Amino acid sequence: MSLPVPIPDSLAPLQAFLAGALARVEARFDLQLRSDLPPVSKLCTHIERYRGKMLRPTLAILAGLAADPRAAHAPPEAIVSEDHILIAAVCEMVHMATLVHDDVLDEAETRRRGRTVNRLHGNEAAVILGDYLIASAYHLCSQLADQSIALEIARVSMTLCAGELLQLHHRRDYSLDEPTYFEILDRKTAALIAAAAELGARRSAPEASPAPRLLADYGRRLGVAFQIQDDLLDLTGQDAVVGKPTGRDVQKGKLTLPLIHHLAAADATLRGHTLRLLERLDEHADPEARSRLLDALESTESIDHARKTAERLVREAQQALGGIHDSQARRLLDLMARAVIARSF
Amino acid sequence: MSLPVPIPDSLAPLQAFLAGALARVEARFDLQLRSDLPPVSKLCTHIERYRGKMLRPTLAILAGLAADPRAAHAPPEAIVSEDHILIAAVCEMVHMATLVHDDVLDEAETRRRGRTVNRLHGNEAAVILGDYLIASAYHLCSQLADQSIALEIARVSMTLCAGELLQLHHRRDYSLDEPTYFEILDRKTAALIAAAAELGARRSAPEASPAPRLLADYGRRLGVAFQIQDDLLDLTGQDAVVGKPTGRDVQKGKLTLPLIHHLAAADATLRGHTLRLLERLDEHADPEARSRLLDALESTESIDHARKTAERLVREAQQALGGIHDSQARRLLDLMARAVIARSF
Repeated sequence: MSLPVPIPDSLAPLQAFLAGALARVEARFDLQLRSDLPPVSKLCTHIERYRGKMLRPTLAILAGLAADPRAAHAPPEAIVSEDHILIAAVCEMVHMATLVHDDVLDEAETRRRGRTVNRLHGNEAAVILGDYLIASAYHLCSQLADQSIALEIARVSMTLCAGELLQLHHRRDYSLDEPTYFEILDRKTAALIAAAAELGARRSAPEASPAPRLLADYGRRLGVAFQIQDDLLDLTGQDAVVGKPTGRDVQKGKLTLPLIHHLAAADATLRGHTLRLLERLDEHADPEARSRLLDALESTESIDHARKTAERLVREAQQALGGIHDSQARRLLDLMARAVIARSF
Repeated sequence: MSLPVPIPDSLAPLQAFLAGALARVEARFDLQLRSDLPPVSKLCTHIERYRGKMLRPTLAILAGLAADPRAAHAPPEAIVSEDHILIAAVCEMVHMATLVHDDVLDEAETRRRGRTVNRLHGNEAAVILGDYLIASAYHLCSQLADQSIALEIARVSMTLCAGELLQLHHRRDYSLDEPTYFEILDRKTAALIAAAAELGARRSAPEASPAPRLLADYGRRLGVAFQIQDDLLDLTGQDAVVGKPTGRDVQKGKLTLPLIHHLAAADATLRGHTLRLLERLDEHADPEARSRLLDALESTESIDHARKTAERLVREAQQALGGIHDSQARRLLDLMARAVIARSF
């Protein structure tokens, strides 16, 4: 994972190790999906193109390192085990399953500069492929000696689906409030990111260590900040930079933080103006309406409100790291928290 | 489960016990799906309407009884444990998840005389609800002390998806042969039915007992026969009796046993005639073409071929039961095998 923040030279060896570990995660991922049926294997190769930031595997591995009492002096290869690689692969697989299904639901045509599975092979193949990915993730984590990890992965998957259903329930609900928005984010995005950090840490931390809980807390706040940044990019970013069509949230009636803040802060006249713009943008890409919507959001400093909220969450994530021993892994986690909101894609 | 075959009075007490056990399965099922989010819970109540034959839970419980060495004399309540109820609920939950997703893919509007989730709440809610069901199933089976059961459930779920992908790959493939058709059936239907019987049995059988393997074999053959009967009902049944629209397989380009047999047995002229009828029926309900298709199938005795194949599989399933000790549970399993092909819905 190349970070959009400057990285000190002292962390270069850890970064190199991480790149190698992520390559092992990818290999484990591909091996798990392999099928004796050629049409199934062929479809799975498409998933490789979906691979992006590998945020969840990165967190599982770095949290695994940071939670180990030997983190300050032992080489990373002495700490990161096959179990860490497996946990990282499982988290990424659950995440990929949600992406494949999301693309069907959003009728998305591109993802990470490539065609989506649904676009290339139809909705049916995409829905079943998502199911195959989920089943593969459970099959993989059920192989761990520590059964509590499979239980946690399943619990988080339920949470994730519940978050998506809650979001769907509030679609086009223009009175959606911030607490409900954060409830949705916490479940649909932050829970799995927190679990990646926590489960990686749990595999290395001594019993009764506070590290897994602290790293879960770090992951949860970073996860919410990550989603706010995603929502900001969808609202303000350009397709070519972000790598997929932007403006989709508004078109799909998904209210995100800037809009929620704006609708609560605006007077009746401005609110009426914005609601008319939202109506024009419903299911339609209308560049002029979008530009006027951004102007309206600026007038109530709502983009700024969302940026500041994400920054606060990043600081809180960094504070959670303060509770664990210093190490290079902890320093890289600290940088990652900043990178999450510095990115433009 | 009321069986479409005569049941001797001597089995009435076991049937009453089974009804009670299935009620416990339903309660466990509902409890597992309960959410603190009202929109999620509300959507889950819809699933209750999907409940039908409860074939997989019935097999898990009866196989659990039949595999126990005390089966011939101990009362069923002394043998069937909470674990059996849980295994039964998990198998049904995996099955329900596939039904919910199948209905999205088939754009089905009715199921078991009621509206489908996708028809009532949209495709998005239906896809996520299916995912929620799968996650719930894994969460439930990860609570068992015997971890090998969760591993097996995940493995079977992968098999199931692979079977669906293989079926999709061969859609509108008019040269599909019988071995490939059976490969599809074995994976997409029979594997989970076999697993329900095997896992139920594994929970009660002494180590090294052949019962789980024999009951898996029974379940697998019964599962294939069950699907052939389903396919026959779709081809020859009437909507009002079957409880959902029939003729969908042909409309969706899914080739089933009678058609595969017919296309292989027909001479060039008849084959051309049938392919033209299939073209007319593609994505269309055309009663006249459907009636002529049935005439064509009769002319090569293809319906009869499918019926006889299902009957042979039922006999083989019954033979597998011959390897385990006699008991009332075994007798009911024997009757169930016959019931699978005697049913008209």
